[in-house]
Amino acid sequence: MTESTNEPRYTENMQESLLHIQNLLEKHALVEGVAHKEALPRADRHALIDTLVHKQHLTKLRAKLDEMHAADIAYVLEALPIEQRLQVWDLVKSERDGEILIEVSDSVRESLIASMNREELSAAAGQLDADEIADLAPDLPQNVMRDVFKSLSIEDREQLRSAMSYSEDSVGALMDFNMIHVRDDITLEVVSRYLRRFDELPDHTDQIFVVDRDERLIGVLPLKRIVINEPDVVVSDLMHTEMKLLHPDEKADKAAQAFERYDLVSAPVVDEDGKLVGRVTVNVVLDYVRTESESDLLNQAGLLEEEDIFASVWKSAKNRWVWLALNLCTAFFASRVIGSFEGTIEKFVALATLMPIVAGIAGNSANQTTTIIIRALALGQITQANSTRLLLKELAISGLNGLVWGGVAGLFAYYLYHNVALGLVMTSAMLLNLIAGALVGLLIPMAMHRFGRDPAIGSSVLLTAITDSGGFFIFLGLATIFLIN
Amino acid sequence: MTESTNEPRYTENMQESLLHIQNLLEKHALVEGVAHKEALPRADRHALIDTLVHKQHLTKLRAKLDEMHAADIAYVLEALPIEQRLQVWDLVKSERDGEILIEVSDSVRESLIASMNREELSAAAGQLDADEIADLAPDLPQNVMRDVFKSLSIEDREQLRSAMSYSEDSVGALMDFNMIHVRDDITLEVVSRYLRRFDELPDHTDQIFVVDRDERLIGVLPLKRIVINEPDVVVSDLMHTEMKLLHPDEKADKAAQAFERYDLVSAPVVDEDGKLVGRVTVNVVLDYVRTESESDLLNQAGLLEEEDIFASVWKSAKNRWVWLALNLCTAFFASRVIGSFEGTIEKFVALATLMPIVAGIAGNSANQTTTIIIRALALGQITQANSTRLLLKELAISGLNGLVWGGVAGLFAYYLYHNVALGLVMTSAMLLNLIAGALVGLLIPMAMHRFGRDPAIGSSVLLTAITDSGGFFIFLGLATIFLIN
Repeated sequence: MTESTNEPRYTENMQESLLHIQNLLEKHALVEGVAHKEALPRADRHALIDTLVHKQHLTKLRAKLDEMHAADIAYVLEALPIEQRLQVWDLVKSERDGEILIEVSDSVRESLIASMNREELSAAAGQLDADEIADLAPDLPQNVMRDVFKSLSIEDREQLRSAMSYSEDSVGALMDFNMIHVRDDITLEVVSRYLRRFDELPDHTDQIFVVDRDERLIGVLPLKRIVINEPDVVVSDLMHTEMKLLHPDEKADKAAQAFERYDLVSAPVVDEDGKLVGRVTVNVVLDYVRTESESDLLNQAGLLEEEDIFASVWKSAKNRWVWLALNLCTAFFASRVIGSFEGTIEKFVALATLMPIVAGIAGNSANQTTTIIIRALALGQITQANSTRLLLKELAISGLNGLVWGGVAGLFAYYLYHNVALGLVMTSAMLLNLIAGALVGLLIPMAMHRFGRDPAIGSSVLLTAITDSGGFFIFLGLATIFLIN
Repeated sequence: MTESTNEPRYTENMQESLLHIQNLLEKHALVEGVAHKEALPRADRHALIDTLVHKQHLTKLRAKLDEMHAADIAYVLEALPIEQRLQVWDLVKSERDGEILIEVSDSVRESLIASMNREELSAAAGQLDADEIADLAPDLPQNVMRDVFKSLSIEDREQLRSAMSYSEDSVGALMDFNMIHVRDDITLEVVSRYLRRFDELPDHTDQIFVVDRDERLIGVLPLKRIVINEPDVVVSDLMHTEMKLLHPDEKADKAAQAFERYDLVSAPVVDEDGKLVGRVTVNVVLDYVRTESESDLLNQAGLLEEEDIFASVWKSAKNRWVWLALNLCTAFFASRVIGSFEGTIEKFVALATLMPIVAGIAGNSANQTTTIIIRALALGQITQANSTRLLLKELAISGLNGLVWGGVAGLFAYYLYHNVALGLVMTSAMLLNLIAGALVGLLIPMAMHRFGRDPAIGSSVLLTAITDSGGFFIFLGLATIFLIN
């Protein structure tokens, strides 16, 4: 058996580790089951052996967990059903609770926090930095937050207050306070002596910050430059004065784009007076980008938030209901549009078989348009100067699609029902609905963006509602005019 | 007017910069237009003034571009229509061509490369590192690649060959060769002397690599540790031996997960003998994560690849056609399913108005299931042990949804047509189709994953095909049995 070491290991194959842990948990459960059954009627000897085996599995599991990286334990917790998750959580050393709570997803964190009492939670939060406590704060009970607050130093309290004051999607929410700063009139030798007083520099310290008398940021000094220069060089001769500054109230999105564009590892955050208030590091940005892109995918599929795959049926259902309810409403509306043409369908039942084609293809095409526009909006590529151009382009594409795929659908209709007029109605309806789809597919996200809302949320429900109802209306309307005498 | 400086500036407000450049381009175009019109009949004086004004705008634009970061120029190029894009591209100093080509997206890169001749392209590629040339290689003409290859040193050629040999989604494709390595028996003082021989350390050098006599990696030494320790400490006493190792043939996804989980800035890549062959840095990982998540979103919307928003109508249409053609096929099939119940619909036309509801809601619900399963698969959270559990959970949710929303839809049908049997058929059809949707929504991605395919691509077409056709079949089938005598 491996000894637990001070430095956690990196797991080579996470899936294997997970299987190993599941295996230990199952053996343990098995032994426990046997022990319970046999303990009552049978001899003590049996029970003793069982307890030993039982203990052995738990010891193995605990040793395994001790040597694992906090992020890997978080991963395992995410992948385990709730009972097993809590079993593993109990085996984790309590001094690691804090770092692991930071690593798990919101939904899993909730399940872990629910299993802990006030003391445990306060202790866990006490292990964390102010910016990390701020991340946990929304999930912690009020009384725990009070305990934590009391236990902090004045400086930490100030930082926690500041970190909690920024909105979730601002730079302030990504910021930490682990920045090292020096003055510009000292030599590298003095800098080195200062740095050697630290046992360990904060993670992601790729540069130290240079400030003036008033704590205003005047430059950054990369560690890279410290190690390749002679000790007698003065900081002001070596520091960069061109640097990417972030502001705590700026959108987190903008910071992420700056990190991507300029390949940053850390960036200073300054207030309106130019005073250094914190820093953002690339690991936080990477997590942010991943989380944002995941929530885009989830929203596109109509899920409110990320789901713990082992959440209760009831909880998961609630996460999915808003969307389904909305869709049901738009489906009812579309159904009434069809209903108003019942007379027409009664006379010409082929229309009922063809109408879903008109609605469906336009929906898909409009969705393509919207996706491209939302991306361009997020990148800030759409300006007054080019929006008309984009509109014309999307209309041209949908016109082309209308002629090509509408033509194919018209032939399909003609082939089935040997009716030229039906084929023409089909093609025209497809063409019109595709053009209408492109129009709304472009205008909806642009309007949402103009009014400061996230165009990725809700665009698709609106879109489908319009291409569905619109498609039925156009197709059945044209059919009523041209086919029914 | 600002002087161009050596160090490029970070742009504070990208959208403003873009507007400024568009403005200059338009003024320039205006002057050019006037010059063309007036040059023929009128006096020389006019033409001279025009040329001066004309030149002035271009000079301003060039100065602006010179001081911009390569990544910001790339951003501007992306946001400009093709003629203006090429105008700006011509104004960029040719020694920056290489770095900018690396920054732009694939589709925009194509348009830039198409405007350059062999010499220009060879020169641009010559400015880049081997791993960057490998990224450009698929877009460069054969003869340019031959030129570039000839101009490289033997070591660079070897690196280029190696970089080009790895598949696009492997660690090898993310890797660069800018790693600094030292031996473990030297002191920090010797390390420092060695480092000072560099003018500049490679970007993202947060650690240097420690290798043995045979170039096998035995540890890593963070710069952070170098600066906080005394010069007489020996490397072997200070280096970490626990480190995350990557392998060139590993999936890039795995590397990205390791960077996210362990908050890495750089990680060594070793071959099967443990020899150091390269490193991966977090900026590349961040780009990779962004690109992957974008292509997930694009694929979900049925787009083959990212689209230059100013690409020709024809090119954009081709990017969207595969999907539309596939959807048209599945729509034709669904249409034939309805067609086989024409007799039923003729007798009871209300069915035509209600059938899209059954199909649509199940499609949405199945899509939610698939999205959650795809995410869990990507994270490796689904094991043999819990897949049955997940299946049961999804079936339970869809059953619940079927009762709730199917019930609502049934009441809606009853309210409209005052027919209890119709309401019951509606509810049962919704329930059955939702359950079927959950089943395929779970099984399709799991099967695709088992067969080594990316479940994010194509799942949704298949899914919609099944919930549409299936919904029509179940609803109209039940109606034929229970409603039509």
